[in-house]
Amino acid sequence: MEKVSLARGTRDFGPAQMAKRSFIIDTIKKVFQQYGFQPLETPAMENLSTLQGKYGEEGDQLLFKILNSGDFLKNVNKKNIEEGNWKMVTGDIAEKGLRYDLTVPFARYVVMNRHEITFPFKRYQIQPVWRADRPQKGRYREFYQCDADVVGTNSLMCEAEIILMIKDAFNKLGILDYTIKVNHRGVLSGLAGLLSAAEKETSLFVAIDKLDKIGEQKVKEELIERGFDAASLPQLFEVLNFTGSTQNKINFLSSKFSNSEIGKKGLNDLNEVLNLLKNFGATDEHVELDLTLARGLSYYTGCIFEVKINRASVGSVSGGGRYDNLTAVFDSKEKSSGVGFSFGIDRLYDAMEELSLFPKETISTSKILIVHLDKESFHYSLKAAQTIRLNGIACEVYPDQTKIKKQMEYADKKNIPFVVVIGSEEIKTNLFTLKKMETGEQSKLTIEQIIKSIK
Amino acid sequence: MEKVSLARGTRDFGPAQMAKRSFIIDTIKKVFQQYGFQPLETPAMENLSTLQGKYGEEGDQLLFKILNSGDFLKNVNKKNIEEGNWKMVTGDIAEKGLRYDLTVPFARYVVMNRHEITFPFKRYQIQPVWRADRPQKGRYREFYQCDADVVGTNSLMCEAEIILMIKDAFNKLGILDYTIKVNHRGVLSGLAGLLSAAEKETSLFVAIDKLDKIGEQKVKEELIERGFDAASLPQLFEVLNFTGSTQNKINFLSSKFSNSEIGKKGLNDLNEVLNLLKNFGATDEHVELDLTLARGLSYYTGCIFEVKINRASVGSVSGGGRYDNLTAVFDSKEKSSGVGFSFGIDRLYDAMEELSLFPKETISTSKILIVHLDKESFHYSLKAAQTIRLNGIACEVYPDQTKIKKQMEYADKKNIPFVVVIGSEEIKTNLFTLKKMETGEQSKLTIEQIIKSIK
Repeated sequence: MEKVSLARGTRDFGPAQMAKRSFIIDTIKKVFQQYGFQPLETPAMENLSTLQGKYGEEGDQLLFKILNSGDFLKNVNKKNIEEGNWKMVTGDIAEKGLRYDLTVPFARYVVMNRHEITFPFKRYQIQPVWRADRPQKGRYREFYQCDADVVGTNSLMCEAEIILMIKDAFNKLGILDYTIKVNHRGVLSGLAGLLSAAEKETSLFVAIDKLDKIGEQKVKEELIERGFDAASLPQLFEVLNFTGSTQNKINFLSSKFSNSEIGKKGLNDLNEVLNLLKNFGATDEHVELDLTLARGLSYYTGCIFEVKINRASVGSVSGGGRYDNLTAVFDSKEKSSGVGFSFGIDRLYDAMEELSLFPKETISTSKILIVHLDKESFHYSLKAAQTIRLNGIACEVYPDQTKIKKQMEYADKKNIPFVVVIGSEEIKTNLFTLKKMETGEQSKLTIEQIIKSIK
Repeated sequence: MEKVSLARGTRDFGPAQMAKRSFIIDTIKKVFQQYGFQPLETPAMENLSTLQGKYGEEGDQLLFKILNSGDFLKNVNKKNIEEGNWKMVTGDIAEKGLRYDLTVPFARYVVMNRHEITFPFKRYQIQPVWRADRPQKGRYREFYQCDADVVGTNSLMCEAEIILMIKDAFNKLGILDYTIKVNHRGVLSGLAGLLSAAEKETSLFVAIDKLDKIGEQKVKEELIERGFDAASLPQLFEVLNFTGSTQNKINFLSSKFSNSEIGKKGLNDLNEVLNLLKNFGATDEHVELDLTLARGLSYYTGCIFEVKINRASVGSVSGGGRYDNLTAVFDSKEKSSGVGFSFGIDRLYDAMEELSLFPKETISTSKILIVHLDKESFHYSLKAAQTIRLNGIACEVYPDQTKIKKQMEYADKKNIPFVVVIGSEEIKTNLFTLKKMETGEQSKLTIEQIIKSIK
């Protein structure tokens, strides 16, 4: 036998995993659609000119490049090959690459179709992306991203709706214990202002991000080491250590940000989002202002989000924020401000598996297997199966005439919850045994009664 | 502005196309599931050793190859480069390729998981594939395939169920005028037997496949040119020209195939499939025995299918057949016989577009846009939207406070069928204008009445 294997870092999704993944994806899709988001799909392959330079130098290295078709050596610069300069050779022999994320293809789509698109444009996109990362536990070379964005409006209603969509999705998935951490780029700037550290924002946020893990003392040491003024640190930690509701935190911060216009703007935005939530008839339950939250500092310009499932060992399962110029990477003139967020399908899957949150019904496809005892009942089964299917119930007939034990095993292995047994006696009386596989419970019913009881 | 474009031969699917594609794909998925088929997804990237040698020499050329990450020049044979031998170089610098079809990855999955799979294994798979073909009208470098197979049984019930699934899917898609052409590998051999041409089967079938296009006389000339015995041709054409129901054709052929065991076996199989259809309570409407149908001669071993939408200009939109050994390409010892078929999503899309078969509702996502006249009504709108969404109706609020005309245009451009107008007067009276965009028809209703009337 030829040895066969998967490409490193990739996975098959068999029926059981697919059922669970579809449960997650279909649930999220439905929520997106309820809020007026429409689907977009872009190709797996993009021109390398579209992808390169968008993800930093490390990102460029992680792009999968596709070898040009035909004689790719024709236009290659021989000198680069002789010198082993593979980076230069890449440009000669590969002009396409695999999608690395969904944001850049989305931006390309918006730039290419800006005259046809109706703005504000609300799109969702659920597709795999590929990264030439070193595979390890929980990190794959092919994985799904699941993004939703609104482009072309500054309305904070969109931020409020993102919170609502996360709540809706989690509620439908059965995830009840989670925290939606929010923060604002302006608030982060306000914090930096407390230390007069506007120029060292990044190193400030990198340090305070570790507060949870290494504690106040170590963070202070690190900040001093990084050149922050020790005298101003107590002010910072007074703010970071303040406990209370999100509303209380906002009020407290307002008193500290009197000199920071951008800080005040951030607080106003957060306040407005909370008000809009109230207008929607929702509460700020699960929502928590987390001043240490700092995502994509160079990209996000307004509210930022990150969602954590509280008793699960995976990291954040959703995140996003407002940005000022999605299409800047392609077109510096057109401004397309928007706000977006994404769900991490793989992490949601792992968390739901860990917390046993998948409903049982996601696992099997068919509800009923019809088991038959002889040729006559096999033929009778077909008619019965068709009647059951016409009533919207997925149903199978074991395709071969074989021992009842083998047919039962098939139902068992495929997790088919009900078996209907048809033999000559059953055909005569028009009463069939319906067996519930989980409990072994049996009842004698007509096909119509079986349909009713399963429905 | 940087010039951006799609990679050649690839497409974006915007909201309107996605809605229609999803209608097709979701409908087919649901039918597969009704018959107990379960989903499988395999990675976009496979090892080239898995893909190469499976699609003939031309197929190997059409595989997209992925450049190895990092210093791909390290292990390259410099001599091949100097000699410009790019085919040899490919093997040194690329070890992965993009999926070319869904059959080979499925066979790989079966081989790798044969101890865990419950046979008969019924799987469906709907994923894109990639081919480095020269792009032209209707031919893309990325397109979806949509396959369903049962592996591990010889039961002709599976063939009958394939016919039922095609009928179900077309019925649900609104395609009513179509033909399911069936034939059988054994019948084809029987036909060749009439000419004592067992060794020249392929050239026989290539010639008679043209009967429709070039007519009997030209086909006869071609056959004589290809060395067939002119004296035996009248026998062949007596059979090919026989008209009548599928059942009549089978009966007529039986009298001709008395010397061909394999021909008789083919007719018996077809007969049995027709009988099973009857047992399912279905008719052979749309089913037509087409003796000129010859698909994948070296692969299929039993019944073969091909489906044509009668008044559409696209080619066949579905096809398949029974094969003897799916996994032979990886493992010559294990026999995994099965039967499968696939739908051509792109062609179905084009045909449904051509025949205007897409239902209107597939086009838009939201059912309702709430239009607001001032700040108070904007805030009121949010609560109303949430109530509507909780009732399962997709709904949007225009995110910015702007002119009513602009909000209406948004609904119009996005094909949102209903608009609810909220102003201070409406809030006072608790009666809101519901406007049907298509007709302009308006009525004054409470939110609850609006929900009821839309549902």
